[in-house]
Amino acid sequence: MEIKEMVEAVCEAKKEVGGLRQVYFVACGGSLGAFYSANYFLQREAVGLRSAAVNSNEFVHEAPSALDERALVVVCSHGGDTPETVKAAELAKKRGASVIGMTYTPGSPLTEFCDYVTDYKFRTDLDRSFAEDKALVPVTIAVEVLRQTEGFAGYEAYVDGLKKIDGIVRHAQEQVKERALRFAETYKDDKIIYTMGSGASYGAAYIQSICIYMEMQWVNSSSIHTGEYFHGPFEITDRNVPFLIQMSEGRTRELDERALRFLKKYAARYEVVDAKELGLSTIDASVVDYFNQTLFTCVYDIYNAAFAEARKHPLSVRRYMWKVSY
Amino acid sequence: MEIKEMVEAVCEAKKEVGGLRQVYFVACGGSLGAFYSANYFLQREAVGLRSAAVNSNEFVHEAPSALDERALVVVCSHGGDTPETVKAAELAKKRGASVIGMTYTPGSPLTEFCDYVTDYKFRTDLDRSFAEDKALVPVTIAVEVLRQTEGFAGYEAYVDGLKKIDGIVRHAQEQVKERALRFAETYKDDKIIYTMGSGASYGAAYIQSICIYMEMQWVNSSSIHTGEYFHGPFEITDRNVPFLIQMSEGRTRELDERALRFLKKYAARYEVVDAKELGLSTIDASVVDYFNQTLFTCVYDIYNAAFAEARKHPLSVRRYMWKVSY
Repeated sequence: MEIKEMVEAVCEAKKEVGGLRQVYFVACGGSLGAFYSANYFLQREAVGLRSAAVNSNEFVHEAPSALDERALVVVCSHGGDTPETVKAAELAKKRGASVIGMTYTPGSPLTEFCDYVTDYKFRTDLDRSFAEDKALVPVTIAVEVLRQTEGFAGYEAYVDGLKKIDGIVRHAQEQVKERALRFAETYKDDKIIYTMGSGASYGAAYIQSICIYMEMQWVNSSSIHTGEYFHGPFEITDRNVPFLIQMSEGRTRELDERALRFLKKYAARYEVVDAKELGLSTIDASVVDYFNQTLFTCVYDIYNAAFAEARKHPLSVRRYMWKVSY
Repeated sequence: MEIKEMVEAVCEAKKEVGGLRQVYFVACGGSLGAFYSANYFLQREAVGLRSAAVNSNEFVHEAPSALDERALVVVCSHGGDTPETVKAAELAKKRGASVIGMTYTPGSPLTEFCDYVTDYKFRTDLDRSFAEDKALVPVTIAVEVLRQTEGFAGYEAYVDGLKKIDGIVRHAQEQVKERALRFAETYKDDKIIYTMGSGASYGAAYIQSICIYMEMQWVNSSSIHTGEYFHGPFEITDRNVPFLIQMSEGRTRELDERALRFLKKYAARYEVVDAKELGLSTIDASVVDYFNQTLFTCVYDIYNAAFAEARKHPLSVRRYMWKVSY
């Protein structure tokens, strides 16, 4: 079933109970981070519909009052077996909410509690369009939800963006190949790397920080919002500490530019990943913000493969996950 | 004017335009962090009213569609002169929203664009009740807003909690004095300290990380949500890296307990700040979650004074703020 049809079915069902009132995006870690743009989209563009992105375990322990039959809960788990997220979906069903599940693993435990299930393109699906990227599928769900409830003037522009994003990402991945190798050589012995971002794509910085540097490379990290940087974090800036800064295309680009100006003056070791330079600007300005995250995440894939190789630390190595119970 | 009366005036004014629909908490850095519990409260307890906490500069550059005459914007700046927050208040007024300003500096530029202004207790106000703490004033605003719109069953319990919190915090500050000295001696030479928390008080961990460790002590840091810890960040855990973990009282305590169990097994250097042990449990369970942040932040004041002293690095030292333009 297409996303458009799933959302139509959800909105139709909600008519009987007074209409869709709340969307929850519920997941853990990288999957929660992948919801960032979708939640941001609804919080910025909707005027009545509520939206929140919540960690699955927090959602289960502190279930919100608005989790009822007027809610849509979108859950995501790559393996479909994250226990907290399965519980969250179960709770959502029990409360009468509609549930859309995103998982890469058909028939996984998560799907038992979902009304509708969709998958997404993963790194290894070479032929599949980046329009079906893990961070874009939830945006498409959010865009459909808004269009079918309050209406969304940017809908045509968004659909047009979906047609363009695959070519943009593929080109950008080629474009960064050499600089990814240089980055890997330069920073392979660092003990800490900060990531920076803003706006709808801050989630890409969050994922890069917690899933790549901390989880897969055991490098200390934190994601810093470029609007927050000047209100605390910037005091740790010096000529040694490394930053990976993503320059978004769209309405919050000025925040990123301000942070970069500061880095140019007071830092010496920073890597810039610039959505404008990487060709995102051919997407209409009214919706371009919501495509940044997919571009950044997919470009980071190239950086991360090179980084793991240079460090002789494969991205698949863990010391706790899959090894100890917790 | 009392908070209750301000909110009454706002809600009354909104009746003419269809009723209050959206609350925005807008600030930067520590002031944004101080809004965490208030925004969390509305997102968890309200069913129709929308709420969001947004960095001021992001708010100005990507003004949400729902920023209109049906919105209430609560802004906060200690000095009342944070340029991004002043601009945010100005924009809010221009869009027809009601604006409540929180500032410690009467007559500051921020107040020009506020319909109502309130201050709060600061560290140096020894005689003032902790019920007027910077993180609790916005919760009180949020509680009043909910009571006067949708209704809030926990209202009496919350008012009762306000009566108890001052005694609890004062006692807790005494209780941690010695362990704060031990913490300072133990961690004074560390180059990185992680903070951990969850639920309504995650903001306290965020502030401790960006305003104390990074800004005031130039120590690398990141705040880790205890529900997210197991989905990435926990892989950096070893017997050397230090963690400051806050154990909240209330509905998400189990998340913190799970993280602490893991630390006990695989880490060796961690400090526990436990709201239950510090006496927060005398506040009713229906509202206790919303008092954690004030307790943690005020207890951290004791830790931070000792830490700065042990490191011979006063909390007031900066290398960029007040010194260079940015």
